[in-house]
Amino acid sequence: MGMDLNRYHPNNLKRVSSGMINVHPIQRGGILTEEARRVLLEWADGYSVCDVCLEGRVDLVKNPPIDEFKQDVAEFLGMDTARFTAGARHAKFAIMSAFKNGTLVLDSLAHYTSYIAAELNGIRVYEVPNSGYPDFRIDPEGYATTFERVKEETGRYPDLALLTHVDYRYGNLADARKVGKICEEYEVSLVLNTAYTSGIMEVDGKKLRASFIVGSGHKSWAATAPIGILATNYELADSVFRTSKLRGDWSGRAFTKKELALFGCSPVYGLPVMTLMASFPRVVERVKRWDEEVEKARWFVREMEKIEGVELIGERPKNHTLMHFESPAFHHIAKKHRKRGYFLYHELKKRKVFGVQAGMTKNFKLNTYGLSWEELEKVAWAFKDIAEKYGVEVED
Amino acid sequence: MGMDLNRYHPNNLKRVSSGMINVHPIQRGGILTEEARRVLLEWADGYSVCDVCLEGRVDLVKNPPIDEFKQDVAEFLGMDTARFTAGARHAKFAIMSAFKNGTLVLDSLAHYTSYIAAELNGIRVYEVPNSGYPDFRIDPEGYATTFERVKEETGRYPDLALLTHVDYRYGNLADARKVGKICEEYEVSLVLNTAYTSGIMEVDGKKLRASFIVGSGHKSWAATAPIGILATNYELADSVFRTSKLRGDWSGRAFTKKELALFGCSPVYGLPVMTLMASFPRVVERVKRWDEEVEKARWFVREMEKIEGVELIGERPKNHTLMHFESPAFHHIAKKHRKRGYFLYHELKKRKVFGVQAGMTKNFKLNTYGLSWEELEKVAWAFKDIAEKYGVEVED
Repeated sequence: MGMDLNRYHPNNLKRVSSGMINVHPIQRGGILTEEARRVLLEWADGYSVCDVCLEGRVDLVKNPPIDEFKQDVAEFLGMDTARFTAGARHAKFAIMSAFKNGTLVLDSLAHYTSYIAAELNGIRVYEVPNSGYPDFRIDPEGYATTFERVKEETGRYPDLALLTHVDYRYGNLADARKVGKICEEYEVSLVLNTAYTSGIMEVDGKKLRASFIVGSGHKSWAATAPIGILATNYELADSVFRTSKLRGDWSGRAFTKKELALFGCSPVYGLPVMTLMASFPRVVERVKRWDEEVEKARWFVREMEKIEGVELIGERPKNHTLMHFESPAFHHIAKKHRKRGYFLYHELKKRKVFGVQAGMTKNFKLNTYGLSWEELEKVAWAFKDIAEKYGVEVED
Repeated sequence: MGMDLNRYHPNNLKRVSSGMINVHPIQRGGILTEEARRVLLEWADGYSVCDVCLEGRVDLVKNPPIDEFKQDVAEFLGMDTARFTAGARHAKFAIMSAFKNGTLVLDSLAHYTSYIAAELNGIRVYEVPNSGYPDFRIDPEGYATTFERVKEETGRYPDLALLTHVDYRYGNLADARKVGKICEEYEVSLVLNTAYTSGIMEVDGKKLRASFIVGSGHKSWAATAPIGILATNYELADSVFRTSKLRGDWSGRAFTKKELALFGCSPVYGLPVMTLMASFPRVVERVKRWDEEVEKARWFVREMEKIEGVELIGERPKNHTLMHFESPAFHHIAKKHRKRGYFLYHELKKRKVFGVQAGMTKNFKLNTYGLSWEELEKVAWAFKDIAEKYGVEVED
């Protein structure tokens, strides 16, 4: 074959962000803990956790203690039971597969995978508006209004609601408690997508009246990809974790223990579940330090806004570490720069800061989660230094 | 919380098979290559490969070279294009989601995930019989017969056929070429499930007339879990990899690049795709040495059958390294043994051999793939030594 296999040699497979402070919005919460790194070699082979599988399902494995772990995760989220899935996207697919061809109300800041999970299950989607520029807030009352709109259009209230706890565009923290209360009043099950919250901040599904908590291990629980968390209560577990009913017409074979929407046995064996497990004690601890993360984020916003024209969009003050800035001054520079929109990316790289999307200058996003004060200062300095280099004013 | 977090400490997370020869049927082909081990630390963090994602889909990422890699994998399998999925189970789900509520003919030795993928998509399943004890062979002609049976029952030939290239129970190698030819004659698309073949032996989808090749990275391509391979031809790619059509009713948002059945962007970012990539050059090389693996397997069968009453079931001679034995003598011992059926598992462990399912003595399965001659001899010796210890005759 004419393939250039040399490009796959380990020497040629280095992360472009190596050695830099990575503020990419999706990377901060997925950086492995030291404990997770320590289990990498032991559990890296393919189906490693399946050495002693007696019941044919990864969530029932006793050694390593996955069966106990899933219950601890459920408890940690204030829910009754949990499963692990191939990412939060798979968790949402699994939930929605129990509401096939139904109706779903979701916030208009939802991640695309929430829409995709609905589409894949033939579910009709109704959006709760957001307040638009510059805050892009979701008013919890919008859920009630949209429920009524669904009723008007279809004759029934929706089958399901979904709220994005913190959205990926502005890092706005939605008022889950209020939305939960409205859903409870309407008796509509609420899916709370905590891809950017659980694992880094405290989330209690019972208090928030969520019927389903969806989380992302590789986004916010310091695990290798892909692993999602799907926690629910006992009433709904049977339908979402329903088992196979099929029977082979010739063989009579049946698979009565296999959970249908999880592909029978959820594909998280090996490193995803083991790194999630190894990181879990740190995760349980780190969510208690969320206030400090918010404090750092707010400090960072103040520093960034010292740069002429840089302005946070989304809610203020920040309640999360994912943030979105407008920066007309950088955009202005890009227009004349030889590297065009890529200048900011390259200038940041020179200063050992990575994660602002290449090509972006007018708007950009970043995430400060887990940065030390020292790192945070370096990142703020990098932006200011670039601004000054190009003659943009920076307050003292 | 009252959780015992100490059990998740790395010191307490060791594989029970550590330091032993692991002949577990699903483990041999997923043991990482040295090259894959070398990329573990670099790529372990959550979304590592998404550092530079410009197009919003993991299979289009240029750095690391995933976009090129998927084409190399397709070429390696004799197909036009490929995607990576959350395991072979997800690949089968994705294919079948393009044939929703249709009909599927599959071999009666198919893996449960093939049935589950059909059930999840409302597909009606018809089985091709096998020859039963002791060979359990699939007669390719059974596909034609079953196609006719489907026509009789439903008025139409089936929408899809699936053949398990090597089955997980007996390790029988099905005659894919003949089945492919029949499918071609009937114009029924064939899914070839190569979870136990591609990655360890040569598979050429074009020659075999397969419309879809499904492979398992963690089972047979020396990758961390979960990663499946879904290769197809250009004609079918559009339907299986169809993109999202949904549009937000308030926001107008659309996700026209996201592939629906892969959850938009397939959850293989991070280690699964990177270890698959790092192992690929070795995989391309190792499939050429398959004959030697078959030779070793046959040698091993001969050695095992020197033990009184031990007999291979499934096809003979072996054409694969996964094998299934009956052993009435071990079963007889188990009946009187203090540890009952677990005695064999424990006796093997004492001899540093792992992977025969705990509790099994009457029948057991194992896989010799990739064992050196020396290791193979050790495994054969262990079984013989146990037999002799309990007074079971062993030929010289």
